[in-house]
Amino acid sequence: MDTSILQEHRARIDELDEQLICLLAERFEITKAVGELKAKSGLPAADPQREKDQIAQLHEVARREGMDPIFGEKVFRLIVDEVIRHHLQTADAHGETED
Amino acid sequence: MDTSILQEHRARIDELDEQLICLLAERFEITKAVGELKAKSGLPAADPQREKDQIAQLHEVARREGMDPIFGEKVFRLIVDEVIRHHLQTADAHGETED
Repeated sequence: MDTSILQEHRARIDELDEQLICLLAERFEITKAVGELKAKSGLPAADPQREKDQIAQLHEVARREGMDPIFGEKVFRLIVDEVIRHHLQTADAHGETED
Repeated sequence: MDTSILQEHRARIDELDEQLICLLAERFEITKAVGELKAKSGLPAADPQREKDQIAQLHEVARREGMDPIFGEKVFRLIVDEVIRHHLQTADAHGETED
């Protein structure tokens, strides 16, 4: 086995994983701001229509990039569930300060 | 509620999600090549030591970026389980062509 090729592949995977974390971290920063906007306006944490639109868009991008859309949707679901959990915490905290 | 700010946030989230899919698609391209190398060399699909190193690195990056490392690990686990599933399929296909 050509271990240098394996090492090269692994180095690129590590770079991609670092970029992935950076993207996710920025995404959570933004959804935190969205959660605060929603809490202030008394809007619900989840938005089923927005999620449907996002999933449709995600399927399109996944197909274009040659990735399994079902897997893309699994990752998206994991992220959105975490976002909703954050939104609910923010809404709770907001409710408490108003009591 | 300031809907223009919400729209702005959502537009950036959509951009980040597109980049996320692109990164994941490139990652699967590379792990596909790794799977083929492994199958040719008869190496196992999973590599627990490599995974441990990756998780340690991922925790470090998540902490640096202000993201929950446990959530980062969940995303990583989802991706690696999918990669191992691909590797096993590749190993099976490789075995069949040699029979």
